[in-house]
Amino acid sequence: MKAVGIVVEYNPFHNGHKHHLEAAKAKGDLVIAVMSGDYVQRGEPALINKRSRAEMALRNGVDMVVELPVFYSTQSAEIFAKGAIGILEVLRADSVVFGSESSDVNMLEHLASLEEHEEFKESLKKYLAEGNSYPTAYSNASKEIFGEANELKPNDILGVEYIKAIKYWKSAIKPEPIQRLAAGYHSEEITGNIASATAIRKSLIDGSEKLSEIVPRDSEKIIMEEYERGRLTYLKAFYPLIRYEILKNHSALKNIQDMEVGFENRLFESALINKDFENFYEDVLTKRFTRGRLQRILIHVLTGLTEEMTQEVKKAVPYIRVLGFNKKGRKYLKQLEETKIPILTTFKNIRKNLSEDRRKLLEFNERASDIYTIINPYEDEKIPIMIREEEKDNG
Amino acid sequence: MKAVGIVVEYNPFHNGHKHHLEAAKAKGDLVIAVMSGDYVQRGEPALINKRSRAEMALRNGVDMVVELPVFYSTQSAEIFAKGAIGILEVLRADSVVFGSESSDVNMLEHLASLEEHEEFKESLKKYLAEGNSYPTAYSNASKEIFGEANELKPNDILGVEYIKAIKYWKSAIKPEPIQRLAAGYHSEEITGNIASATAIRKSLIDGSEKLSEIVPRDSEKIIMEEYERGRLTYLKAFYPLIRYEILKNHSALKNIQDMEVGFENRLFESALINKDFENFYEDVLTKRFTRGRLQRILIHVLTGLTEEMTQEVKKAVPYIRVLGFNKKGRKYLKQLEETKIPILTTFKNIRKNLSEDRRKLLEFNERASDIYTIINPYEDEKIPIMIREEEKDNG
Repeated sequence: MKAVGIVVEYNPFHNGHKHHLEAAKAKGDLVIAVMSGDYVQRGEPALINKRSRAEMALRNGVDMVVELPVFYSTQSAEIFAKGAIGILEVLRADSVVFGSESSDVNMLEHLASLEEHEEFKESLKKYLAEGNSYPTAYSNASKEIFGEANELKPNDILGVEYIKAIKYWKSAIKPEPIQRLAAGYHSEEITGNIASATAIRKSLIDGSEKLSEIVPRDSEKIIMEEYERGRLTYLKAFYPLIRYEILKNHSALKNIQDMEVGFENRLFESALINKDFENFYEDVLTKRFTRGRLQRILIHVLTGLTEEMTQEVKKAVPYIRVLGFNKKGRKYLKQLEETKIPILTTFKNIRKNLSEDRRKLLEFNERASDIYTIINPYEDEKIPIMIREEEKDNG
Repeated sequence: MKAVGIVVEYNPFHNGHKHHLEAAKAKGDLVIAVMSGDYVQRGEPALINKRSRAEMALRNGVDMVVELPVFYSTQSAEIFAKGAIGILEVLRADSVVFGSESSDVNMLEHLASLEEHEEFKESLKKYLAEGNSYPTAYSNASKEIFGEANELKPNDILGVEYIKAIKYWKSAIKPEPIQRLAAGYHSEEITGNIASATAIRKSLIDGSEKLSEIVPRDSEKIIMEEYERGRLTYLKAFYPLIRYEILKNHSALKNIQDMEVGFENRLFESALINKDFENFYEDVLTKRFTRGRLQRILIHVLTGLTEEMTQEVKKAVPYIRVLGFNKKGRKYLKQLEETKIPILTTFKNIRKNLSEDRRKLLEFNERASDIYTIINPYEDEKIPIMIREEEKDNG
């Protein structure tokens, strides 16, 4: 069986995702999705919990969904890609299919190799020192040294990071960019999910856009269920917890991943005076940060993700947790021989045979999900989801 | 000027408190109240914030209100009393006036001296080993060794602790018990404020008891203001924060003040599964704990109060913070010569000239109040309150 890997957030699953998924299915025998858990790359809690998002994925045709844990999912594009590709490598995916503005694999591979170029390295260093994020600095440097044609678009930035991650893990996974459709399809896979989430929320609140026109039927049903139960989840709702953590543990904030020297004091001073999230947010936002970067720092504070832990998970994927599968996915799981990295399915075996280091990271991710349930009390004990083929509905 | 000290919570100020205050005023030239801040001895957030409660005290005739910081106020009777008497000693109070069932100072002094008695010490140790709180064990032991007459009632337990604290600090403060009135007056000063708070809340919600019949007019006005702004504050509202702290920092819970070995695991397992405070509360409550003791542990978890910090504040009062005063109180403050312990009035001098150790404890208490404002966003920058004599209203 040829296994195609995809890296997704499905926050929530919409028509653009459906298009991407169909393209991936055409390229192999089964599709494995590595999906962000309860927190997504923009540094936000997922609009809908990971269990329901995994169900959307399966009902729309993904064969197996595994979780991208919070220590990868809320990180910069570089670490996000390292985590996702590391997981696909353990699961022996043959390829990774991703949306791309250029869809030119040779160009993306060229761009991914630039780090070995001396002049480029100097330029990259300069842009990083100016406070740019890694992908932005990377894009600027490639433009500076190799000309306008080498400026990277959002999905290509991620594509380059996938290719770099494939090299990093010495993996044989084949990168397969596919042309993205026009924006009308709301096909922002990862970096732009916010627009979709906003559109979907807008359609739920003021009916400005019919939900059924922007998401498949299976998604609509699940989104409506979550909406009716009052379980659409926003960063704002976590502000009491984030504020509490900042006020109580001011001195420990400096060890948090992505925290810049002194920024912990800015967070503290702002948390002291701002009772509302909106005011706090505008108060701490600086020109040097994108909103994504600021929000990632806030999620790292909320979950307690440290720089030290990040260094650890960059060395190796500690474990893989299966969120759900259909018959084909289950068959694939079974035929995977003994893997170096433990693959966890049911809760029963979740802690069994795990080394102390792996268990610590597993529990870190579980606690992050437990914190999510303080705001959104979904039933995470119903993981993994098993879908029988006849239930599948592509409507 | 003869300064009379009282130890209060005013949660909120009612007719029983008024009676006690009038009796105290009759015993000297001015009354200094040491009042629990935003958290009270039963292990709860104060129903009404410390600023408004200080205002109630001043408008009802207290001349100066100083704060009993959270590291004393939410502790067992022994440490609560040590903190309060330690503060009155620094403020050179001549006496401490407190409600008492017996109102027999000789008997209370006798009971306070029992610790030096060998047989009593053995009995006390036995009751403590059985898991009783210190005052309960003390009362049981005194009954066992000296007979029924030596069983202690709630206010007398506190009275004995005041007398023990006077000895502990080698203070010359004169203990003056005054006869408590019948329960109809709702005169539970400290250990029983819950009944009053309940009665007051009940009267606000269902009008079962007219507020004006149980509290003085000045209190009624302030209580109604807080009620109308939705700012009556209950422990239940803090559950998301307490749950977050338990889930996130499970391993650090063992250092928390009053935590029994292994109880941190019970808290953790219960926080994992219980989305509602009521279920969590009943789940963690054991026969060995009183509700007060359990709630104190929960507040210690919320604020991060450790056993180590408790040992530190038992050695010396680190600072005194003035919450408010009238003309007479201000005059008294001015005529106090240089004190060994810094007395802080305005925010401007709050950190100035404080040693590192004192500043750490001051900021701990400030953070605890900031955490309180996550749930009840009152304006604590309006402290201290200055009341001009002509505004005073005893109606």
